[in-house]
Amino acid sequence: MYPNLLVKRVSLTPNRIALRFNEKAWTFEQLSDEVDEFAEKLYTKGIKFGMRIAILASSDAQLVIAIHGCIQLGCELVMLNERLTEEELRYQLLDSNADYLLVDSVEKRSLTFPNRLSFELLNLVERTTFEVEKEWPKNRTITIMYTSGTTGHPKGVRQSLENHVMNATGSALNLGVQPNDCWLCTVPLFHISGFSILMRSVLYGMTVNLHTKFDAEKAVEEIMSGTVTRMSVVAVTLERMISVLEERNISFPNTFQSMLVGGGPVPLNYLERAIQRNIPVLQTYGMTETASQTTTLSSEDAIRKLGSAGKPLFFADVRINGAEKIGEICIKGPHVTMGYVGAAELKNPLVDGWLHTGDMGYIDEEGYLFVVDRRSDLIISGGENIYPAEVEQALVKHSAVKEAGVVGKQDDKWGQVPVAFIVLKEEVSEEALKAFMKTEMASYKQPVIYYFMEQLPRNASNKLMRRELFKYVQEMK
Amino acid sequence: MYPNLLVKRVSLTPNRIALRFNEKAWTFEQLSDEVDEFAEKLYTKGIKFGMRIAILASSDAQLVIAIHGCIQLGCELVMLNERLTEEELRYQLLDSNADYLLVDSVEKRSLTFPNRLSFELLNLVERTTFEVEKEWPKNRTITIMYTSGTTGHPKGVRQSLENHVMNATGSALNLGVQPNDCWLCTVPLFHISGFSILMRSVLYGMTVNLHTKFDAEKAVEEIMSGTVTRMSVVAVTLERMISVLEERNISFPNTFQSMLVGGGPVPLNYLERAIQRNIPVLQTYGMTETASQTTTLSSEDAIRKLGSAGKPLFFADVRINGAEKIGEICIKGPHVTMGYVGAAELKNPLVDGWLHTGDMGYIDEEGYLFVVDRRSDLIISGGENIYPAEVEQALVKHSAVKEAGVVGKQDDKWGQVPVAFIVLKEEVSEEALKAFMKTEMASYKQPVIYYFMEQLPRNASNKLMRRELFKYVQEMK
Repeated sequence: MYPNLLVKRVSLTPNRIALRFNEKAWTFEQLSDEVDEFAEKLYTKGIKFGMRIAILASSDAQLVIAIHGCIQLGCELVMLNERLTEEELRYQLLDSNADYLLVDSVEKRSLTFPNRLSFELLNLVERTTFEVEKEWPKNRTITIMYTSGTTGHPKGVRQSLENHVMNATGSALNLGVQPNDCWLCTVPLFHISGFSILMRSVLYGMTVNLHTKFDAEKAVEEIMSGTVTRMSVVAVTLERMISVLEERNISFPNTFQSMLVGGGPVPLNYLERAIQRNIPVLQTYGMTETASQTTTLSSEDAIRKLGSAGKPLFFADVRINGAEKIGEICIKGPHVTMGYVGAAELKNPLVDGWLHTGDMGYIDEEGYLFVVDRRSDLIISGGENIYPAEVEQALVKHSAVKEAGVVGKQDDKWGQVPVAFIVLKEEVSEEALKAFMKTEMASYKQPVIYYFMEQLPRNASNKLMRRELFKYVQEMK
Repeated sequence: MYPNLLVKRVSLTPNRIALRFNEKAWTFEQLSDEVDEFAEKLYTKGIKFGMRIAILASSDAQLVIAIHGCIQLGCELVMLNERLTEEELRYQLLDSNADYLLVDSVEKRSLTFPNRLSFELLNLVERTTFEVEKEWPKNRTITIMYTSGTTGHPKGVRQSLENHVMNATGSALNLGVQPNDCWLCTVPLFHISGFSILMRSVLYGMTVNLHTKFDAEKAVEEIMSGTVTRMSVVAVTLERMISVLEERNISFPNTFQSMLVGGGPVPLNYLERAIQRNIPVLQTYGMTETASQTTTLSSEDAIRKLGSAGKPLFFADVRINGAEKIGEICIKGPHVTMGYVGAAELKNPLVDGWLHTGDMGYIDEEGYLFVVDRRSDLIISGGENIYPAEVEQALVKHSAVKEAGVVGKQDDKWGQVPVAFIVLKEEVSEEALKAFMKTEMASYKQPVIYYFMEQLPRNASNKLMRRELFKYVQEMK
């Protein structure tokens, strides 16, 4: 059993700031009061202990209150991604067998459902008190999040109380904890990157400074003000913040402790520029199935171990499957999911206690993990393996290239060949890029076609969606 | 299962400083190498997985290595207190059914035992490699420590891996963790106050700066150098350090984060002087049965909540037994012992999952615990309860009083009456003290006799031993 996280936190530090959103701030006690009100209104509407509640809402203060409210009622949360199509959402509602759909606004959300409630409607409801649990079982499912997996329909991943607690605890031992900690959250709460910040908040007694959307200018301003100590980004949003700092010729204050960068390796060029601007970059390897980070690279090692995602957090273990140096990354620990819901429910994600991620990587002689690529993105050309991330990193070394995405294209001769999608900083010819790449990698790895785009397709966490690029390639042939 | 703590720590931060002792320093890798050597020599001598090893040694670097060495071999450690008499030690050896006695030096230790090994002897032994476990079960007994309890023979308390890990984790969430943390350890390693610092070290990747004995001057120097961030003391050693600072008219640097004060409440006078010298005092309530802290008071609350031991750490819970405001303090959580060894083995320390401490206290309306007294020290006079700590705190308010100890004396009329033992800062008459106490407390609480002493009897942790005072009183009648 663990204590009821929010109740325990309020008992410890009622007057610390729990949440900042727009111009408003909530202490843990104030947050808890609003959470109780929300939960009691849900209870009036018939929502009961153990029900499964799907939430479709923007990442604002009201969503934070709704999330904690459902958890106080003992419900399992299905966190819906607001960028999905109605068809995709409907699949998740059906697959998770949700009892209720909770939306922020009826007008904003056209998705229908038999048991649908909105935040607006709940505002008008009377409160009905219920007895709050003082302790929660470790294996209770707190959240269900859908991930794409390698093929077919997405799977609903269970994240238990223990998954969240042990992930937050391992992160605390690695990153450190300070009484004045404040995490700037500009990633969506329906993704584990954002949700895990809420869990750290109640466990550490830490402020969450929440922005509904990432805005490089605003994020830089928050950090420059000296109140923010940590933040989660991906490489592309990191680069945008670096650019803002460079334009203004300023650097981050020493109050800022950790810039946690997920969703793939950070190019050397970004790292070097980050150091110039006093940004302590910590690259991390995490996923929905591990309730956020599994490995994290310290900022001191960022350059020396370029491309590495670091070492497993204290309670986590990582091994490489197979006889080769590069193999499938397998993960073990109390932060790893116990399984799925819905169609995948009978699928055990663990083999002998290890989560087989489908990602490819290796561990070097010093114990650092290198994620070579997501297995599903692997390009096989003439029997040779090509890892798109490696090619992308080579491309962004060119001074004219801002961002790059690489996927495989069907080829009669080689099976597949790599093609590149490029966002430019300044004008450059395809010939010039090809010439540059000849100096960078073996010929079979060099992209055969270059497509120039205004921007690359990215998901709500700003992670590159290579599958979208793959669709373009198929349409263009 | 948890990872093998030392192996995991070495894999994460091999080059961080683990230990400083005298002029020498060990990184985690260097420490681990010496630990492996020690364990392999023990193995050569026939010590095997699961054996129970009693250790009698001074708190130095060699003891740190021996402790970790035994744990790497999967042994249970009986931590013997080097200040005990041979008779007392012999009782613990027999009661714990120890397989081996390990002493630092044959010359220094006259205690005999069939299977006795010394650090000196082990130095001469060859190494035999064995397979180190990568993971340890949570319920493994790491240490056994004897505590006096209220009456009769001391009991051997089991401290499991989970007890130690969850205590250190809860402490981290409360005190914070920094990559440059260094804990000054001047309390003995055979007590939980010292041993728990070793556990925090491997979990946090933190340096332990170890002194065999407390020396106020040396402790102040270490902290003034700016490398020490945390320290554990009791009220009397705190006062000695404050006096050194006052004599030199200096204050602690801001690098110093937490002065954890256990073993009873800190007098207001000490707290006020500590604030003047920039010492962040955190009063704590801990015991052998809870593998160190259960509640801790933040330094911000030190004056406002004078006399309180703070709130339960994140994974701990406290309640007061009984219908009155003041009752027996009961504790629950993953840091609480599962039980005893030896004669007390069948005694379950938990009732319905709660440890009944025998200590008396109350929880105020804001959730702060006040430890009124250890039940065994309670003085009952004419049907009124007198808590010695309360009287002692009143006495040290007098400018001439340095330290005070109060116990009950048999009395034909009242059953018991309080008597005081006083260490003076400057000359003062018994009459003057009596007059002062009349202004401080109800008449039945005022000591009827004053004994002036050079020093008070204290144990190895510098905690006042009221039972010794009680013996004096009995002899003096």
